Amino acid sequence: MALFFGLENLRSPVLAPARAVANWEQELFMPSPAVAFARQNQARFLEELKDLLRIPSISTLPEHAGDVRRAAEFLVRELQRIGMEHVRLIETAGHPLVYADWLHAPGRPTCLCYGHYDVQPPDPLEEWLSPPFEPAERNGNLYARGAVDDKGQMYMHIKALESLMHAHSGQLPLNVRLLIEGEEEVGGEGIAEYLRQHPETLAADFALVSDTEMFASGLPTLCVGLRGMIYTELEVRGAKTDLHSGLYGGAAPNPFQALCWMLAQMKTPDGRIQIPGFYDELQAPSAAEMATWKRLPFDEEKLLHDEMGATALVGEANYSVLERLWARPTLEVHGMPGGFTGAGAKTVIPAKAVAKVSMRLAPEMQPQRTFERYKQFAESICPAGVTVEVRLIHFGDAIVIGTDNAYVRAATEALHTVFGRETVFIRSGGSIPIVGDFERHLKIPTVMMGFGLPDDNLHAPNEKFCIANFYDGIATLIDFFERLGK
Amino acid sequence: MALFFGLENLRSPVLAPARAVANWEQELFMPSPAVAFARQNQARFLEELKDLLRIPSISTLPEHAGDVRRAAEFLVRELQRIGMEHVRLIETAGHPLVYADWLHAPGRPTCLCYGHYDVQPPDPLEEWLSPPFEPAERNGNLYARGAVDDKGQMYMHIKALESLMHAHSGQLPLNVRLLIEGEEEVGGEGIAEYLRQHPETLAADFALVSDTEMFASGLPTLCVGLRGMIYTELEVRGAKTDLHSGLYGGAAPNPFQALCWMLAQMKTPDGRIQIPGFYDELQAPSAAEMATWKRLPFDEEKLLHDEMGATALVGEANYSVLERLWARPTLEVHGMPGGFTGAGAKTVIPAKAVAKVSMRLAPEMQPQRTFERYKQFAESICPAGVTVEVRLIHFGDAIVIGTDNAYVRAATEALHTVFGRETVFIRSGGSIPIVGDFERHLKIPTVMMGFGLPDDNLHAPNEKFCIANFYDGIATLIDFFERLGK
Repeated sequence: MALFFGLENLRSPVLAPARAVANWEQELFMPSPAVAFARQNQARFLEELKDLLRIPSISTLPEHAGDVRRAAEFLVRELQRIGMEHVRLIETAGHPLVYADWLHAPGRPTCLCYGHYDVQPPDPLEEWLSPPFEPAERNGNLYARGAVDDKGQMYMHIKALESLMHAHSGQLPLNVRLLIEGEEEVGGEGIAEYLRQHPETLAADFALVSDTEMFASGLPTLCVGLRGMIYTELEVRGAKTDLHSGLYGGAAPNPFQALCWMLAQMKTPDGRIQIPGFYDELQAPSAAEMATWKRLPFDEEKLLHDEMGATALVGEANYSVLERLWARPTLEVHGMPGGFTGAGAKTVIPAKAVAKVSMRLAPEMQPQRTFERYKQFAESICPAGVTVEVRLIHFGDAIVIGTDNAYVRAATEALHTVFGRETVFIRSGGSIPIVGDFERHLKIPTVMMGFGLPDDNLHAPNEKFCIANFYDGIATLIDFFERLGK
Repeated sequence: MALFFGLENLRSPVLAPARAVANWEQELFMPSPAVAFARQNQARFLEELKDLLRIPSISTLPEHAGDVRRAAEFLVRELQRIGMEHVRLIETAGHPLVYADWLHAPGRPTCLCYGHYDVQPPDPLEEWLSPPFEPAERNGNLYARGAVDDKGQMYMHIKALESLMHAHSGQLPLNVRLLIEGEEEVGGEGIAEYLRQHPETLAADFALVSDTEMFASGLPTLCVGLRGMIYTELEVRGAKTDLHSGLYGGAAPNPFQALCWMLAQMKTPDGRIQIPGFYDELQAPSAAEMATWKRLPFDEEKLLHDEMGATALVGEANYSVLERLWARPTLEVHGMPGGFTGAGAKTVIPAKAVAKVSMRLAPEMQPQRTFERYKQFAESICPAGVTVEVRLIHFGDAIVIGTDNAYVRAATEALHTVFGRETVFIRSGGSIPIVGDFERHLKIPTVMMGFGLPDDNLHAPNEKFCIANFYDGIATLIDFFERLGK
């Protein structure tokens, strides 16, 4: 058996000798019947995932609301087919939740599997090598919007459950609930609202989220920390109407110029955020955690040249890059709608301009308090002639997960079994607000076990998922569930 | 005769007692037969103008190229109909020129009438009270994109010529050439190229441009100075692809943030432009000219509240508002395309961002030299991690016209005859590059006699033209041509 879930595919030069060949073989372990079933069906699993990826379920664009629902209905049909129970759509103020469960393993733990079936907009379209909603295989990867974030990773849960059901005559080794949302990419409140109102219907011992990535190809990874975030808009208004820049330029307030002055004051070129009190509650990670980060196979040049393709890394020079990405807060501008953005020249001083600005927050920073400080600062530096409205679009708490529980231990062992290497514990600079909601409303910890790779182009053109990771992830999840059912 | 070209319509509270009732009547002058013809046909003239305004000849949008040509063909038919000769389209690399002449008045001066038939894009569409290409009359105004800039004003020339032709048995009192372009709003080089290559085919004694405005309603105005301009783009690039702001924020360069830092350094909040050498060649207007500006009925509060509707005028506090608008250079941001501009939230650090930036220039400032200084400064302040490309989109020279020639004197008298008030000499902060081209290539001065009003919303939603000014402008032009033919 030369190929097993693509484990021969040694992709990371950083990690040589990388991922061992199938550990089950090497150590003379036999794959379980469920793993064997998954292996036999991997081509079908991939085709099903492609069908799901063809649905452009872009949650932020109202014209795609029908597609978002179609993706939810696709999951309902699939969950019913594999034998899950109580499968249904749960309506929210926005896009629906998909729910299913199987709760016939008394005395065994209950896992709440979370994922999201919505995706980011694909723009800029012209930079995709193949259309974002026509999945394409190239070099062992599957390219499509949502391939890794999060349709591909969420679908691994379903395929692991299908394999277990099939291998155990319709039984699972533990109790499972699935809750899959359609508003993750827009920070929709539907799922949090449901958790708040119906925590008893989601009773579980822990949650499982596969929306994170491996630190490097072949290196099994558990994420134990996430930054929080707030997403905001600054809307600046000057004149009541657009003005001709020749006739009024020199005396008319310019909302774009005002935003530039304000945003230049928000953050210095060396990455220091200037909002008064912004860093007040911030604490450094423990010395022990930082020591483990130092041992990670982190290649700054690879991040800069291969992943980013930029001329220099930026930010706070007195913090390591991993610290800047995982433990330091940020402030970023995402776009500045308004004015004239077409080709050619229009000499307008626009009546208004908007900046879309988000901040990532370290664990100790409260989103609401940070927003208030930011709002107050923005208002205080708003220049003469314009007014500013500061809007909070959405927010999420930061998370730090302990590593001393049975679920994280089982995940560590499952990863070791499939990947044949020591699991590393990292943080992610991103935010998964739902993990905070699980902690707050359900009082449960979350295992963040993801199989994305650093170059998967999340939220960008040419998003992809390594097909071998899709298969290995399913095997790992099967092994994880079987361990917890022992 | 109670109504004469709408002169009873006293619109400017600043100027009370404003525009006298028809001066011809008051002083017992009889209107000429041509003026009488124009008065009798004013309703038809207005309907014809509406037909022209219905053509969305937006020169900057490639999808409207056919409409731009339709507008040119409309003018060709009309010029043929009224009896002009050699009427034709002159093809250019872009949109065509419209040419016509009538040269049978030996010993009389030759006037080159200039106008443009292209218009600005109408966005933001939702702010128009009536659709931009469905001309609507409200409160004595005609609302449409291009109503005043420049279809309405250009069409006055044609209607004055038609009236003269009709009243004088197919003759004109002077020689006339018309040259009407379709790329004024995009700074197209077609007309300048034609002037450079064929100056002999446009031989004339002076040019007439009606693309300026009256200082106040009822106050006859000649414009004797224009600012120059350069229109540029700053394109800033960071990573090779869009990045997730959670995963990369803190170490990845952000092109929008870089543009904000750069644009904040370009101009201080008190309006001082920081480009080294920017003001080096600048000279103040003469004491005499500034003294006349002080006597103009300028109402700063009216500019601020009625025209702009802003909370404060901005700019260089140690210069008067008129000096800031007419004689001081500016730097304005018109739009910042790139990144995510839709509704909702997308957490992207975009690979690139653009700022559309223009500068208005005082007479002594060379566009090309100013651009070089700007480019060098932008490159020198480009922050680490990003690169900047500085592009010149188009430019135009500033102009100062002398008032001591027969054409300006005739215009002054014609305006006095129709409006019954002393003509004022002003500058405009806008730019009409063609006036510099006439000076450079044809060696002729330009009479800038316009009938727009300060609140006509040029380049903005709800552009309008005061219908009384359309009629009075035609009468003034007839009188002007008849004076020059004496």
